[in-house]
Amino acid sequence: MLDFWIEFASTYSYLAAMRAEAVAERAGVRLRWRPFLLGPIFVAQGWTTSPFNLYPAKGRYMWRDMERLCARRGLALRRPDPFPQNSLLAARLAWAVPEARRAVFCRAVFHAEFAEGRDISNAEVLAGVLAGTALPPADLLAQARTDEVKAKLRQETEAARAAGVFGAPAFTASDGELFWGDDRFEQALDWARDRG
Amino acid sequence: MLDFWIEFASTYSYLAAMRAEAVAERAGVRLRWRPFLLGPIFVAQGWTTSPFNLYPAKGRYMWRDMERLCARRGLALRRPDPFPQNSLLAARLAWAVPEARRAVFCRAVFHAEFAEGRDISNAEVLAGVLAGTALPPADLLAQARTDEVKAKLRQETEAARAAGVFGAPAFTASDGELFWGDDRFEQALDWARDRG
Repeated sequence: MLDFWIEFASTYSYLAAMRAEAVAERAGVRLRWRPFLLGPIFVAQGWTTSPFNLYPAKGRYMWRDMERLCARRGLALRRPDPFPQNSLLAARLAWAVPEARRAVFCRAVFHAEFAEGRDISNAEVLAGVLAGTALPPADLLAQARTDEVKAKLRQETEAARAAGVFGAPAFTASDGELFWGDDRFEQALDWARDRG
Repeated sequence: MLDFWIEFASTYSYLAAMRAEAVAERAGVRLRWRPFLLGPIFVAQGWTTSPFNLYPAKGRYMWRDMERLCARRGLALRRPDPFPQNSLLAARLAWAVPEARRAVFCRAVFHAEFAEGRDISNAEVLAGVLAGTALPPADLLAQARTDEVKAKLRQETEAARAAGVFGAPAFTASDGELFWGDDRFEQALDWARDRG
């Protein structure tokens, strides 16, 4: 088993999410999708927004890198405005969605955001994503606003930080080994298969 | 042709430098080794030391990532103290060394620093590196302190910044396309071969 830490505002989490099912199946490793918030972790580092906005040369490069990688993988890419998106409601929703449907919902959020450029902070957009994946929008949006779901997302974000996660996507094996970035997805799967 | 931007203080530049000859030859692409200083570029971003020191979680991860990658590639890894090393004299020396020997010298610096953990800010250590690669230490150390060589390194650092380089290693093709990180070495070589 491999924990798969994703942040809905993160471009490279989009890349990893869209190939996660295929690469995990090929490796014979079960993935546990764990959406969390990078914001609180960034704030603790003294950042008030995405490092891609704080450091313009790095930001310009990231978008070009994403263009190249998406082209190679046959993925659409459309920048959401603003970037980064506020991912709070989407992340709460992901924890309201039943576990068996979480991966499907997460991929649909990333698709709306980065393939269609839609605003995932908007409850109506997210209602559309839920409906599009045969999940009940009104019920789940209500659940996402309960104290229970809010607390769950806070716990997950704290668990990410405690595991050493400082960016997304990230991967942790059951022995605690940490991997960062879509570029390390294969290594993380190998580790989980061989030592997990 | 592909420009290969390296910073002697950079761990991932070590990784890229040690495989550069083999991967470039396989791709049929000529590499131009361009040592530069990241320090002035970091300072312009508001950083006073390596981001791996500024952000401890990221720093801890980087060393673990290096351990795993070096183990896979059969490379020794020993942390120099302090990290990052002051790379000014090494970078000046690289521009004093004749072009035909620059790659050999650069690899020998990285080996001393990251395989042996030696202090590459030390002129005696660098004299040993020069002697070990059949280059004349006294001559080249004197040349490294001339205004001409100092100006050349400043120009290279400015050229890196102007090319959009914000980290090391980086690669630029003749059409200006920028790639960042040892993880993108193959993509950069493909680009240079197909469109360079």
